[in-house]
Amino acid sequence: MKIIKGSVTAPTGFLACGIHAGLKRMKKDMSLIVSAVPAVSAGTFTTNKVKAAPVVYDMQLNSNELPKSAIVINSGNANACTGEQGLNDCKKMAELTSEALAKQGYKIDKDECFVASTGVIGRLMDMGKIEAGINQLSESLSSAIEAGSDAAEAICTTDTYRKEIAVSLKIDGKEVIIGGIAKGSGMIHPNMATTLSFVTSDVSISQKALQKLLGETIEDTFNMVSVDGDTSTNDTCLIMCNGLAGNEILTEESTDWEKFADALSLVLGHLAKELVRDGEGATKFLEVEVKGAQSKKDAKVLARSIISSTLFKAALFGSDANWGRALCAMGYSGANFNPDIVDLSFESEKGSIMTIIKGVPQNFDEDKAKIILLEKDIKVVVNCNEKDGKATAWGCDLSYDYVKINGDYRS
Amino acid sequence: MKIIKGSVTAPTGFLACGIHAGLKRMKKDMSLIVSAVPAVSAGTFTTNKVKAAPVVYDMQLNSNELPKSAIVINSGNANACTGEQGLNDCKKMAELTSEALAKQGYKIDKDECFVASTGVIGRLMDMGKIEAGINQLSESLSSAIEAGSDAAEAICTTDTYRKEIAVSLKIDGKEVIIGGIAKGSGMIHPNMATTLSFVTSDVSISQKALQKLLGETIEDTFNMVSVDGDTSTNDTCLIMCNGLAGNEILTEESTDWEKFADALSLVLGHLAKELVRDGEGATKFLEVEVKGAQSKKDAKVLARSIISSTLFKAALFGSDANWGRALCAMGYSGANFNPDIVDLSFESEKGSIMTIIKGVPQNFDEDKAKIILLEKDIKVVVNCNEKDGKATAWGCDLSYDYVKINGDYRS
Repeated sequence: MKIIKGSVTAPTGFLACGIHAGLKRMKKDMSLIVSAVPAVSAGTFTTNKVKAAPVVYDMQLNSNELPKSAIVINSGNANACTGEQGLNDCKKMAELTSEALAKQGYKIDKDECFVASTGVIGRLMDMGKIEAGINQLSESLSSAIEAGSDAAEAICTTDTYRKEIAVSLKIDGKEVIIGGIAKGSGMIHPNMATTLSFVTSDVSISQKALQKLLGETIEDTFNMVSVDGDTSTNDTCLIMCNGLAGNEILTEESTDWEKFADALSLVLGHLAKELVRDGEGATKFLEVEVKGAQSKKDAKVLARSIISSTLFKAALFGSDANWGRALCAMGYSGANFNPDIVDLSFESEKGSIMTIIKGVPQNFDEDKAKIILLEKDIKVVVNCNEKDGKATAWGCDLSYDYVKINGDYRS
Repeated sequence: MKIIKGSVTAPTGFLACGIHAGLKRMKKDMSLIVSAVPAVSAGTFTTNKVKAAPVVYDMQLNSNELPKSAIVINSGNANACTGEQGLNDCKKMAELTSEALAKQGYKIDKDECFVASTGVIGRLMDMGKIEAGINQLSESLSSAIEAGSDAAEAICTTDTYRKEIAVSLKIDGKEVIIGGIAKGSGMIHPNMATTLSFVTSDVSISQKALQKLLGETIEDTFNMVSVDGDTSTNDTCLIMCNGLAGNEILTEESTDWEKFADALSLVLGHLAKELVRDGEGATKFLEVEVKGAQSKKDAKVLARSIISSTLFKAALFGSDANWGRALCAMGYSGANFNPDIVDLSFESEKGSIMTIIKGVPQNFDEDKAKIILLEKDIKVVVNCNEKDGKATAWGCDLSYDYVKINGDYRS
């Protein structure tokens, strides 16, 4: 398995593009991803009770387990809290996409088209601009690497750079490629924290196995990152696999199943980490590794609680080795552990420092700690010294700029 | 019932003082509150699994249901994550207090003395300074109003002003006074969010009834405020009632029980709201009222989820009527409600504005909304339009200064 150039257009038979349709003032705001042949697909969606119209629409569509071959996406308007009209607009977007693609020679039924939106909540879509955008997108489709990048760029909101990755691996001796793009920034949190991410592959795979694998992989990747504790109304991860790699249909029984699972995990893990690295106002990337916990579940809860603590995040922004706040966050997490036997260290490229060993605070060198914590990439390692439960969570610090970006997002 | 001047020294037979013992560089850092006669007492404590030594110590002491007549408090050092030595230091503080008070003529056994600490986690107490401080405190006790204020001042950490209140009411025709002080700022969150608060009264009351009432009152006051989502290792609320008002012993069956319960609720409610008003870096005071919910429990969860959302708090800092973030926070709260029939309005002294009615976004006047939200006191009213469950939560906005204060707290 190796990382290669490109993203969603890297696998055979996928086309994409990203354009400015006028939903945002200046930046690109609409993307289209298309498979030239019908693709096996799967999706995971926000657990928020308030679901945006496109989430409701796609969940319904995804439940039929039939092939999907297109995803049309807009940024600038989330189409959330828009009632019946919002759902009608989703349906209309799929219809318009199907019609526009037909003019370019692609036979993709409206029910083979996913719809995704991100942006401001509570405003109706400007369907005139959307329609013009869809026509322009259909005419601009390309399998070039740059086309994938344009699609990655057009789904962004407050992101400061686009997120994309592609990997190549061998399945049955055939080259299989997986490509992905994502948008993140604010509103990223455990519990289906996908925000928007779209993955393509030319692998041949069973739909049921793909849906199950996607759900499991999301658990250890997107659901282990946090920027600010808010779970969005629009979080969506969609994958389309068109089988053009020519391998035997992959199932959980296949010899190369784990290989594919690892590759998908690498793709989603990379995108998830990119989201927090570009978290709103983030100046540091934080990794929290919890090991020695009573169970994997306890380890996950502990790691997520530390990475979600605003007090801990603010301390890291100030490069302050405030391990007490990490232990405090473990304490209110609800997970089982014994605070009296915990080890906790901070690590970065400049070295590492143990702050507590078996629950006992160490007289560590504060100057050395400062040097370690002034780095951009910080790792916190917690050993519960009980059993072998382990988990890793990723997050970022809390800075002045987070407040600035979110203090007046709508204007 | 009326609000009167003073705090913990307002009820008959209570003395207090606050001094600088050198645990902090400049500010007052030790307080002592004493009842001249044995007092019926009760306490509620943090639910954090990591409990500071004084919390462990006081919980044990509180469980014997016997009278307590003194509370010795220090700020500057939380005596948390300090292991066996921390517990020994608590015991020593109680012993020293008992001995020092004996020299002043007060017969208060070491087991009648509560201990409380707040400040930095993970450092051993400087017991030399503590001992000198306790001696000085015992010599400075006074029943003057100013002595209560000094005690209120000396328990503060990052608070920008002291929190105190006293109320007077009639029970059995006798005047009963309740007084209270609290410290808050960072680390305030639902789930036993008391930080430190101390209440005194000259009422005569049954210990069991008092403990039950305190727990219930905390639920609707301190547990409904949030500054930053972190529950501290040290949260403690202690109450001492010495019976000098001369009323018949109050129990839940007494005619005037509700009257006393309302007065205690007023005292704790006032202190709780003062905590968020002085939340770290807060520029606005937020009240979230949820009504029409399926149950009181659902209403509480919804109100707390909105008041705890960092995205919503940042929006309010920017005076942005971003009702979508409130609805989103309701959505991930886990409570039962139907987003399609919710009403949501923002209110302040400048007027009110409906943003959604029965789930439908309104085309409200953004300029008017801005004028309303530029005020310091903002109320968010959510009507779930289902049953009669209701609850109110209090919080503050998220500002640059929160990050600044918490970025380098230890140095």
